[in-house]
Amino acid sequence: METMKALVMKDVGKVVMEDRPMPHVVDPDDVVLKIKAVGICGSDIKIVEGKHHYKPDTVLGHEFCGEVVEIGTHVHHVKLGDRVAVDNNIRCGFCDFCRMGLTSQCVDIKTSALGVMRDGGYAEYVLVPEKQCFVLPDEIDDILGTQVETLATVVNGMNTLLMLPYDYAMVIGFGPIGYLFSQFAKNIAAKVAVTEIDPFRREIARQCGLTVWDPNEVDVVKKIEEFTYGRKADIVIEATGNGLGQALQCVTPGGKVLPFGMDSSIKLEVIPNEITRWATKILGLYLGQNTMVPSIRIFRENRLNMGPFFTKVIDLEDGVKAFDDLGLDMKTLEHKPKKAMKIVMRP
Amino acid sequence: METMKALVMKDVGKVVMEDRPMPHVVDPDDVVLKIKAVGICGSDIKIVEGKHHYKPDTVLGHEFCGEVVEIGTHVHHVKLGDRVAVDNNIRCGFCDFCRMGLTSQCVDIKTSALGVMRDGGYAEYVLVPEKQCFVLPDEIDDILGTQVETLATVVNGMNTLLMLPYDYAMVIGFGPIGYLFSQFAKNIAAKVAVTEIDPFRREIARQCGLTVWDPNEVDVVKKIEEFTYGRKADIVIEATGNGLGQALQCVTPGGKVLPFGMDSSIKLEVIPNEITRWATKILGLYLGQNTMVPSIRIFRENRLNMGPFFTKVIDLEDGVKAFDDLGLDMKTLEHKPKKAMKIVMRP
Amino acid sequence: METMKALVMKDVGKVVMEDRPMPHVVDPDDVVLKIKAVGICGSDIKIVEGKHHYKPDTVLGHEFCGEVVEIGTHVHHVKLGDRVAVDNNIRCGFCDFCRMGLTSQCVDIKTSALGVMRDGGYAEYVLVPEKQCFVLPDEIDDILGTQVETLATVVNGMNTLLMLPYDYAMVIGFGPIGYLFSQFAKNIAAKVAVTEIDPFRREIARQCGLTVWDPNEVDVVKKIEEFTYGRKADIVIEATGNGLGQALQCVTPGGKVLPFGMDSSIKLEVIPNEITRWATKILGLYLGQNTMVPSIRIFRENRLNMGPFFTKVIDLEDGVKAFDDLGLDMKTLEHKPKKAMKIVMRP
Amino acid sequence: METMKALVMKDVGKVVMEDRPMPHVVDPDDVVLKIKAVGICGSDIKIVEGKHHYKPDTVLGHEFCGEVVEIGTHVHHVKLGDRVAVDNNIRCGFCDFCRMGLTSQCVDIKTSALGVMRDGGYAEYVLVPEKQCFVLPDEIDDILGTQVETLATVVNGMNTLLMLPYDYAMVIGFGPIGYLFSQFAKNIAAKVAVTEIDPFRREIARQCGLTVWDPNEVDVVKKIEEFTYGRKADIVIEATGNGLGQALQCVTPGGKVLPFGMDSSIKLEVIPNEITRWATKILGLYLGQNTMVPSIRIFRENRLNMGPFFTKVIDLEDGVKAFDDLGLDMKTLEHKPKKAMKIVMRP
Repeated sequence: METMKALVMKDVGKVVMEDRPMPHVVDPDDVVLKIKAVGICGSDIKIVEGKHHYKPDTVLGHEFCGEVVEIGTHVHHVKLGDRVAVDNNIRCGFCDFCRMGLTSQCVDIKTSALGVMRDGGYAEYVLVPEKQCFVLPDEIDDILGTQVETLATVVNGMNTLLMLPYDYAMVIGFGPIGYLFSQFAKNIAAKVAVTEIDPFRREIARQCGLTVWDPNEVDVVKKIEEFTYGRKADIVIEATGNGLGQALQCVTPGGKVLPFGMDSSIKLEVIPNEITRWATKILGLYLGQNTMVPSIRIFRENRLNMGPFFTKVIDLEDGVKAFDDLGLDMKTLEHKPKKAMKIVMRP
Repeated sequence: METMKALVMKDVGKVVMEDRPMPHVVDPDDVVLKIKAVGICGSDIKIVEGKHHYKPDTVLGHEFCGEVVEIGTHVHHVKLGDRVAVDNNIRCGFCDFCRMGLTSQCVDIKTSALGVMRDGGYAEYVLVPEKQCFVLPDEIDDILGTQVETLATVVNGMNTLLMLPYDYAMVIGFGPIGYLFSQFAKNIAAKVAVTEIDPFRREIARQCGLTVWDPNEVDVVKKIEEFTYGRKADIVIEATGNGLGQALQCVTPGGKVLPFGMDSSIKLEVIPNEITRWATKILGLYLGQNTMVPSIRIFRENRLNMGPFFTKVIDLEDGVKAFDDLGLDMKTLEHKPKKAMKIVMRP
Repeated sequence: METMKALVMKDVGKVVMEDRPMPHVVDPDDVVLKIKAVGICGSDIKIVEGKHHYKPDTVLGHEFCGEVVEIGTHVHHVKLGDRVAVDNNIRCGFCDFCRMGLTSQCVDIKTSALGVMRDGGYAEYVLVPEKQCFVLPDEIDDILGTQVETLATVVNGMNTLLMLPYDYAMVIGFGPIGYLFSQFAKNIAAKVAVTEIDPFRREIARQCGLTVWDPNEVDVVKKIEEFTYGRKADIVIEATGNGLGQALQCVTPGGKVLPFGMDSSIKLEVIPNEITRWATKILGLYLGQNTMVPSIRIFRENRLNMGPFFTKVIDLEDGVKAFDDLGLDMKTLEHKPKKAMKIVMRP
Repeated sequence: METMKALVMKDVGKVVMEDRPMPHVVDPDDVVLKIKAVGICGSDIKIVEGKHHYKPDTVLGHEFCGEVVEIGTHVHHVKLGDRVAVDNNIRCGFCDFCRMGLTSQCVDIKTSALGVMRDGGYAEYVLVPEKQCFVLPDEIDDILGTQVETLATVVNGMNTLLMLPYDYAMVIGFGPIGYLFSQFAKNIAAKVAVTEIDPFRREIARQCGLTVWDPNEVDVVKKIEEFTYGRKADIVIEATGNGLGQALQCVTPGGKVLPFGMDSSIKLEVIPNEITRWATKILGLYLGQNTMVPSIRIFRENRLNMGPFFTKVIDLEDGVKAFDDLGLDMKTLEHKPKKAMKIVMRP
């Protein structure tokens, strides 16, 4: 039996390189991809440290692109040899959420996510349904191609926010998601400010020409007031999971807060009366939705400054070490200062 | 000097009928109205019991209509003899909020509200700026005319919710605000259910043909699940000030919550991760905005079942007793079962 | 070989009852339905009289519901015995339009429509892809079940219009589409008026309690001005295909026009300057989109007065004669007064 | 009596420098401004050549900013010495359009426009109501300050379009309005292309780094198809008044067309069926609305490349000659190639 190399999530703190059987098409709409590149996502780190659900013995990795090397009998659109980005969230298409256009709330998503509940892209090959594949144009290389789905979630955020050219914007957290939102805000909004606790990432924000504050050093509410001539931010994008309280303090009356970052351990006391009095709009949002093609459009035209986004490209074999650069001590599972924004692996 | 009768807010728990000087125009855009009728609002009760800010020695009452009996030198649109409804919230028209169309966040609103911070409609006459006046068509009588501004706040809620004909709606609290939202939902939505703790008001909901639950008797989350075939509500309107937590439990993924009721004493612990995961939209909203004319349109065509809305019409002299019917014991300032939905006074 | 009865479109003016081979599943996601009932749509009439494209030798009929009697190997959601409504427009799911959520513009729609380009529901059985099927609850009987997709297109219109409770609405044309829009407007809007040239259909509008005008008898622009106190209509729904010019005359500044009716033979001279000066929004819209489930919700709760909608239910064998009742002289292919709103056939 | 210099519209083709009485406050909310600078707008040219209504003997000019030198007794927000931009369209604030937030359709606009129906800014001083004044921050100089209202109309267009980062945009006409829309599209959209017949203005588009086509030289429909990989434009902004037909050909199914340019002499034959079939949204729009403050925000942060926008700054005395540079032969009133984008005058 043919085998392939794969990084497998065995148990909390335990990611292991293994030989796994090569995947082959099972269902008529299946496709096998040869992985070209795969990114390490912040939620992969949460899985490894035990803060995110997963299915044991699953190949991790959901930020990947690859080449079609095998297709099922009922595959009509994707062709052998196509280079494709992948939407890792498989939506059933039949539940009422899917059928009313709210596919991010598909009842199957919890059990079908690639790289979480079924084998993903930290491997040489992967099996995916045809409908998850999106052909990449030549202008988008393999490395950038790993981020199409990441950008798709951010574009869904932008579709929800409907940012206007006179908005004052604020982004809480400058990880890869905050980075992408900040680039959009830099293009669109009147002004944008960013907060980030990690010095490596603050430095990248500065390289991008962004105003950036360390929330542990400055009074962020005071800062945003000054920055916006007393108005506060029209839009606050929360991209860490623990900053909704600060977002509510920094948003102007009538403004919008996008609670995008996810951390199920965080609780927050709010005063409902203030949400009403100040007409705050809190716009919860999950995953991408109809936004894979839009993301490809945006990357194709090189509309975002992606220069300092990719810190390095490494071999799949070195993947476990990369978690360290991303701030997770693989021995203690404790956090430490980061040395990277995004790391991509090649199998 | 001419005087008039007026119910004046002296101190917490102390509303007194007094003789006050007749108001006359001061500024060129001032108008004096002879009050035709004035409603008792839930926030009037909160003022009396000390749970809402107010300016001592102010004539209460902001739900009123009247006849124009005196006009300033620069009044060009309103004429002597016009019967008008009044928007009690005076917006400056010059702050950035006003000038960007978000007049509900006008920086002056806090200090200029009629019947709260300056003399209102619990009186024979009142002084108002011309721009607060909206001429009433004959189809709207004086009693209904008192509720134009009340409806205007609810219409602003409807504009924000954009309720669709296939929405499942839920209204938490069946006071006058919940009543009006429920009538809209009954007209527009696929289904609507109401919760209310007060038995008198639950009975009125039943008279209106509404499904109504006592949240102290039934498991509301279970009820809304059954009512919506497992889906939960697409829209939850919170009209009490203390039900946002329940609203978040009752709303379907991707659904909208309108925190409309106001109670500054309430705090709530939320899990931000759930707002994100379930894509909940919390749409804070304050006052009416561009909605006085729309409210007149709706009342004029008799589009809402207002039958059981007005419990009784009394003389201004009997106003203090009415607070009792509305559930506030004027001796102890404690709450008790209500005997009324809306009470209107005639001076 | 088993055969079934079917009404087949042979040539313009020539619809013939034939024995056709029973359909069976071919693709893994195919489903065979036993037709329960099928409605005659206005576009079926246009096909018969040669004013709409079609594929010769096709079984007509796209407004149908049926019972699942055979399923392909890869069918996972629909079960044998399910009673289902059908979306007759098969969207590929892979073109950029589908993938960006605008499925009504799917590049395959032109070639895949059931009852137009491939065999439809004027028959005992029909072959459809599983994803076109929507299970019907018991509250919706077979006759109503034929109209789920029809309503779905109208609901898409309602989603686009975002009709508000203070809107003045006008519907041009009171065929089945105008009927459904009018019922929504009657529920939601402040006022609604309807125009219709056919006396039978005007009479039905009156039975529904609607204000209805014969545009050949009255000055419609004058009428709508009076009806709206000089304002004109906030929303005009054009449901005939030849009334956009009148719609533009009847809409208020800043109002919305929905050009819903389709007639490719009509041309219209417009003055672009007036669209700009009066800030008119012309909101083109095609088919339903994410609206099959919403339509089922609405019918399930009996939210529309469907009493006078169904003029009669006949046998499939009598189908050709029904075209006559619907105003098409099958001998001359000329139009004559109608004797029906909607006719449904049972095989 | 004090006098001032002013350029006065006497008759078609006849603009004359005159000595006019200095204006002084009349109404309590009046303000007198000393003009700092005033731009020449395309509609000024249309007035001069007799293609736009005007009131004879009126001082032209509606793109101006100035210093407050006199205030009425009821002026409370603007102060002597303030440097202000002006919204030249005076809205009554009392008609139903104003009161429902659609101030661009105010019933008084036709008769009250500064520089058209009452004296405007081609002068040393001008009388305006206080509410038309918007204080300028130091970052916006006098020259840029003349364009705040111009930008405000464009921002209203942007608010209507809700341009997204993955939109393909097209702008028909590269006059000052097309220039401003193009800068927004360059910041926000995935790609933008511009068409313009005048060589001087095409050259400026090139200086701005824009893709620009001469519609008399190339097949624009073919060009936009290639430019968008076969898709056509998601958004087409018509900024000439005579390009709506081309806009409809260049917009993708489901896309938006903004008919912004105004020319009352143009008629167009449309096929309503195509608007429906291709789900085209034609979004008529007039003037700015709540967008003066947003425009100030945008200019303050220097968010648009305004480098090649201002062709020259001249003395008011030389104003008549400037019409020549803007393509109007003042002797024959015929059009000729332009030598300027925007010309600003100083009194």
